[in-house]
Amino acid sequence: VQLQAASKEQLTQYESDLKSAYQRLQEDQLTLDLTRGKPSADQVSIANKLDGILNGNYVSDSGVDTRNYGGPNGLPEMRALGGEILDIPASNVIAAGNSSLMLMYLTALMHYMYGLEGENATWQGMKKPKFICPVPGYDRHFSICENLGIEMITVPMTENGPDMDTIEALIKSDDEIIGLWCVPKYSNPTGVIYSEETVERIAKLGQIAHPLFRVFWDNAYAAHDLNDQPAPLANLWQLAQSAGTENSIWMFASSSKITFAGAGVAWVAGSDKNLKALQKLLSIAIIGFDKVNHLRHARLFPDMAALRTQMREHARYIRPKFDAVLTSLDVNLSEFGSWTNADGGYFVSFDTAPGLAKKVVSLAADAGVKLTPAGATFPYGNDPEDRNIRIAPTFPKTEDVEKAMEVFCICVKLATVQHRLASLAS
Amino acid sequence: VQLQAASKEQLTQYESDLKSAYQRLQEDQLTLDLTRGKPSADQVSIANKLDGILNGNYVSDSGVDTRNYGGPNGLPEMRALGGEILDIPASNVIAAGNSSLMLMYLTALMHYMYGLEGENATWQGMKKPKFICPVPGYDRHFSICENLGIEMITVPMTENGPDMDTIEALIKSDDEIIGLWCVPKYSNPTGVIYSEETVERIAKLGQIAHPLFRVFWDNAYAAHDLNDQPAPLANLWQLAQSAGTENSIWMFASSSKITFAGAGVAWVAGSDKNLKALQKLLSIAIIGFDKVNHLRHARLFPDMAALRTQMREHARYIRPKFDAVLTSLDVNLSEFGSWTNADGGYFVSFDTAPGLAKKVVSLAADAGVKLTPAGATFPYGNDPEDRNIRIAPTFPKTEDVEKAMEVFCICVKLATVQHRLASLAS
Repeated sequence: VQLQAASKEQLTQYESDLKSAYQRLQEDQLTLDLTRGKPSADQVSIANKLDGILNGNYVSDSGVDTRNYGGPNGLPEMRALGGEILDIPASNVIAAGNSSLMLMYLTALMHYMYGLEGENATWQGMKKPKFICPVPGYDRHFSICENLGIEMITVPMTENGPDMDTIEALIKSDDEIIGLWCVPKYSNPTGVIYSEETVERIAKLGQIAHPLFRVFWDNAYAAHDLNDQPAPLANLWQLAQSAGTENSIWMFASSSKITFAGAGVAWVAGSDKNLKALQKLLSIAIIGFDKVNHLRHARLFPDMAALRTQMREHARYIRPKFDAVLTSLDVNLSEFGSWTNADGGYFVSFDTAPGLAKKVVSLAADAGVKLTPAGATFPYGNDPEDRNIRIAPTFPKTEDVEKAMEVFCICVKLATVQHRLASLAS
Repeated sequence: VQLQAASKEQLTQYESDLKSAYQRLQEDQLTLDLTRGKPSADQVSIANKLDGILNGNYVSDSGVDTRNYGGPNGLPEMRALGGEILDIPASNVIAAGNSSLMLMYLTALMHYMYGLEGENATWQGMKKPKFICPVPGYDRHFSICENLGIEMITVPMTENGPDMDTIEALIKSDDEIIGLWCVPKYSNPTGVIYSEETVERIAKLGQIAHPLFRVFWDNAYAAHDLNDQPAPLANLWQLAQSAGTENSIWMFASSSKITFAGAGVAWVAGSDKNLKALQKLLSIAIIGFDKVNHLRHARLFPDMAALRTQMREHARYIRPKFDAVLTSLDVNLSEFGSWTNADGGYFVSFDTAPGLAKKVVSLAADAGVKLTPAGATFPYGNDPEDRNIRIAPTFPKTEDVEKAMEVFCICVKLATVQHRLASLAS
C-alpha cells in the first residue's frame, strides 16, 4: 500500500490486517523492554577483570596509596585519562565518583546557590534564569533544571547539532539565559555528532551571553563509536581558548558505559576559575572520591588505545542491535516516520507523524513492549508535537530487539493508518 | 616542680630547662603529623582482599547484577549491614557512595532548599535557622552549617555526651533551632560514648522542637572499639519510635575506617517520610550508587561477626598508638591539662589551660610536629577559651607517635610555664 495515495477502502483493509497482526503479537504475551540506555550483560562482562586487577598493589604509579584519604581531585592517572576523553588538559579535570549526573547536579547547584564571581553572582539571584535545551534531549538534564526552578527553552536539533541560529538569537535577545545542555557526540537520543561549525559557534556563545552563562557539555558517548572510522568531534576547549570563553564551558564524561554502569569513574572539567568554585563546594560535601576504583580503571586503561580496544568490544555487541532496529525501520516504516542513523551512542530517535507518539507507546505497551514514555525527551515530559520516541536497543538480546521492533513497526503503522482514516472521516 | 606551688625562680629555671629540651628537639628536624583521623597503611591493608573478592561473580545473593544500573537504594545486603551498624531496620537504610559526608551534605541541602513537609517547609524559609553544635566537635559538620548559612550554637560536651539540660532549654526558648550534630560513639574528638539517659533525651527532643528539627546522628565510629567489652550505645531508633519522634532522626555511617578510607560504603538512615524526601533529591542527582563496591563489601562482611573480626584487627594496630598518647600524657601532663581516655574512635582530646592551645600548636609546628589547628574543633574555627587540641595518633607509626608526644608534652609544659611566669610578672 502507498500510504499517501491509498483510498479509504484500502486503508480500512490495511487497518484490519494490521489489527490482526497486532492481536497475534499480543497473544505471544511478550515482555520486552526498549526503554533504558543501559549496556547488556555481555557488555559489562568485558570489564570483568576490573575485580582483582590490582593484584594486591593499591599504590598508583603516581605514588598514591589509594586506600587512604587525600587527593580531592582524584588520581592523577585518571585525571589524565579524563583529559584525553574530553580533549582538555589533565590539570583542568577532576576524576570523581561513579556518576557524571551527580557532577552535573553539583555544578548546577554551585552556580545556582553559591556562585563564583562574587557573592551575588548566582543563578538564583537572577529574576528568571533560563537554560536552552536542544530537543529531543536527555530527560535527566531537564530534571536538574526543573528541580532548580530554571526555565527551559527548547531549540530543535538538526543533523549538525542544535539549531545555532536560534540559539544565538535567543541569547542576544534574552540576557537571563545561563545555560545550554549539549550531548555533542552521538547525542541522546538523535545520535548526531555536532559539526565543526556548530562546536565553533558554541565556543563563541560566551562572547555574547551573560557572564554566568555555561555550556554543560555532557560528552557521555565520547568514545562510544560503532564504526571503526568515527566522525571527529571538534575540540571545544581549544576553540573556547581561542575565543577567550573558557569560563563558559563545563565538560562531563563517565566510564559507566565503558566499564560498569553506575560503578565506573566520572569526570568534570573546566577552566581554573570554574574548577576553583566547584572545588570549594566539593570540599564541603566530600573528603574525596573513590581512588581505589580510579586505580582499577587506570590499570585497565593505561592509555587511550586500551580504552579504544574496550570500546570496539562494546561495538561488537551493540552493532547488531542497532542494525536490527535500523533494518526493521528501513523495511517497514519508510512511509511512516523518520529516524536517525547513529554511528554510536545508545539510541535511535524515531519521529512518528505528529500526534502519534503517545498512541504508539501505548499500543506497544499493550503488546508487551515497553518503550520510553512519549515526551520523555522533552522538558517537563511535554513533546508539543507528540512525535518523538527514543528507542534504546542495547540491553535486550538481538532476537528480542528484532521481536520488539516487529511490534513497534506494527504499532506505528496501525496508529498512522487509524489516524489517516480518522482524518479522512472528518 | 609542683607547678601550682612553684616560685618565680623555680619557674624561670624550669622554663630554661624546657627551652633547652625544646631546642634539642628542634635540632632533630622532625616531620611528624598528628592531624588527620586517618587509618595507617597497616590498617587499610587488612581489607586488601576486597580487590579480587568477587572471583568473577558480580551477581549478588539477592540476584542483582551489580555491574549495571538499577536499585537506587543500594544492594539489599549492604542496606542490611548498614541497618545492623546503625541499629535500624534495613528498609530504613540507603546504602550509598563512598562518603557519609556527602550524604550529610545532601540531607542538609534537602532540608535547606527543598524541604519535605510541604512546599514552604524548608530551613531556608526560616528567619534564622540554627544548629546546636556540641563542642569540641567535628569541623566538617560545622563547615556544612557555615556553608548553608545556618547559625551554630555551641553546647559543651560532658562525659555523658552533650549537655542535655542546656540543649533542652535552648530548644524550648528558640523555635528556630532545626538541628543537632551528634557523634554518639567515641565522639570526635572527645571519645565519649553518649549515656543511655543522653540518648533517651535526644530521642525526645522531637517532642519539643520545631517540626523541621533533625538530629544528625553521625555514627562514624559505631564499630570502632579498642576494647573487647565496649560500652553499649543505646538504640536511638527504638527510643525515637517509643517517643513518636522518628522523623526527627537522621543516621549516618561509613566503612571508610572499616575497609578503605574514602573507598568504602556510606549509609544514611531515617524514617519512611524522611527517606522519601531524600530519595526525591537523589533521583535528580544520581542514577545509583556503586553496587559493585557494595557487593565487594557484602562478600567481605557476610555478617556483623565478620565485621567485628575486622575491627579487632584495626584495634590491634590502633591500641598501641592510643597507649603511647595516653601514657605520655599521664606521665608528663597531669598538672598541665586534662584529656579524655577514649576506648575507641580516632582521637584523644586535650585541653590546655585557657589561652594556650594556639601557642602549643605553633610551638609544636616549629619543632616539626603538625597538630590539628587550634580552634578546628569549634564552629568558625573559634575556640573561645583557646584550649582544645585534637590529637589524632592513628596514621603515624607508634614510635613516631611517641616522639611526637614527647614534643607535644614539652610544648604544653613550655607554654604553660611561660604563661605562668607572664601572669606572675603582671
